[in-house]
Amino acid sequence: MADPSLDGLIEALRRLPGVGQKSAQRMAYHLLQHDREGARRLAGALEQAVQRTRHCERCGTFTEAPVCATCVDPRRDPRQLCVVETPADLAALERSGSYRGLYFVLMGRISPLDGIGAAEIGAERLLARAQDGVVDEVILATGFSAEGEVTAHALSLALRERGLKVTRLARGVPAGSELEYVDLGTIAHAMGDRR
Amino acid sequence: MADPSLDGLIEALRRLPGVGQKSAQRMAYHLLQHDREGARRLAGALEQAVQRTRHCERCGTFTEAPVCATCVDPRRDPRQLCVVETPADLAALERSGSYRGLYFVLMGRISPLDGIGAAEIGAERLLARAQDGVVDEVILATGFSAEGEVTAHALSLALRERGLKVTRLARGVPAGSELEYVDLGTIAHAMGDRR
Repeated sequence: MADPSLDGLIEALRRLPGVGQKSAQRMAYHLLQHDREGARRLAGALEQAVQRTRHCERCGTFTEAPVCATCVDPRRDPRQLCVVETPADLAALERSGSYRGLYFVLMGRISPLDGIGAAEIGAERLLARAQDGVVDEVILATGFSAEGEVTAHALSLALRERGLKVTRLARGVPAGSELEYVDLGTIAHAMGDRR
Repeated sequence: MADPSLDGLIEALRRLPGVGQKSAQRMAYHLLQHDREGARRLAGALEQAVQRTRHCERCGTFTEAPVCATCVDPRRDPRQLCVVETPADLAALERSGSYRGLYFVLMGRISPLDGIGAAEIGAERLLARAQDGVVDEVILATGFSAEGEVTAHALSLALRERGLKVTRLARGVPAGSELEYVDLGTIAHAMGDRR
């Protein structure tokens, strides 16, 4: 097909995570046929986000200001520092409404197979941040995947070595689940950590 | 979160077909963290596609020229006119390599429940196109969904009334399928149309 601009659009959409050839085609056709206004708005939103969004100097999450709204909020408890892998994890914790302390976003996790070690996820920056003299508990909220656990373990050792109190999110049965459908590893953990 | 440009990007991505809140968030974070170059390229591709892509004056598919490459190709047989719902369907037929005639793209299908009748999908334009004195077979390749069948039926009546030969894509067992996994309606059709 001699349609460079349509082909270029499909190609660019394919680079989005979770989007294959078929979805990219469907998106491109949809935008051109039904939502040219939406296509223009998306183009503008992309430009603007790329131009304006940077990393918070304190916690590392995405923000437009030098320091993000959470880090400058005087109502947050500066004695608690919660370590997450990504801004999406931070957003999930915020939505849960269960945490009033501050954050540190690793922007990744240790993954030896991909050559990502403690240095690559900014462990040094975390250690410096946690030793500001105010933080008295570091809550490790990395994922419960193999890499998330490895990350939590490595950070926990380094933080404890410096005399910091370290905790980890509890593992257990998800809210709303029927026990019979929960995997056995989760049940075993929930039993071990019963309270 | 006080991040209008990030929120705006997530909002704009959500309008893509098949993209919900979670996927939009994941896409936005991915672009900002790992692929700012890809985000800029996508913005440019969107602008360009919206500016340059229009509908072919003859068949209605997307093209940058007034008439698309297929319609002006002298090697295509102008006596056959294949009617499809969308440019994506046209692309699928082209990939199959099984058709050497010309196309007419409806850009939709009859859907009484949504108030889309024969007029809305350009049936008049199709009738005029099919009566150019060259076309001697109209192949209806609308989908085999309820709406696609209704569309084929309505167009078939109107085309036959004008003395045109009308055919429909064959229904049958998909290539590579085991009979035991094919739905019963398909098997019944394949049996009825056996050759």
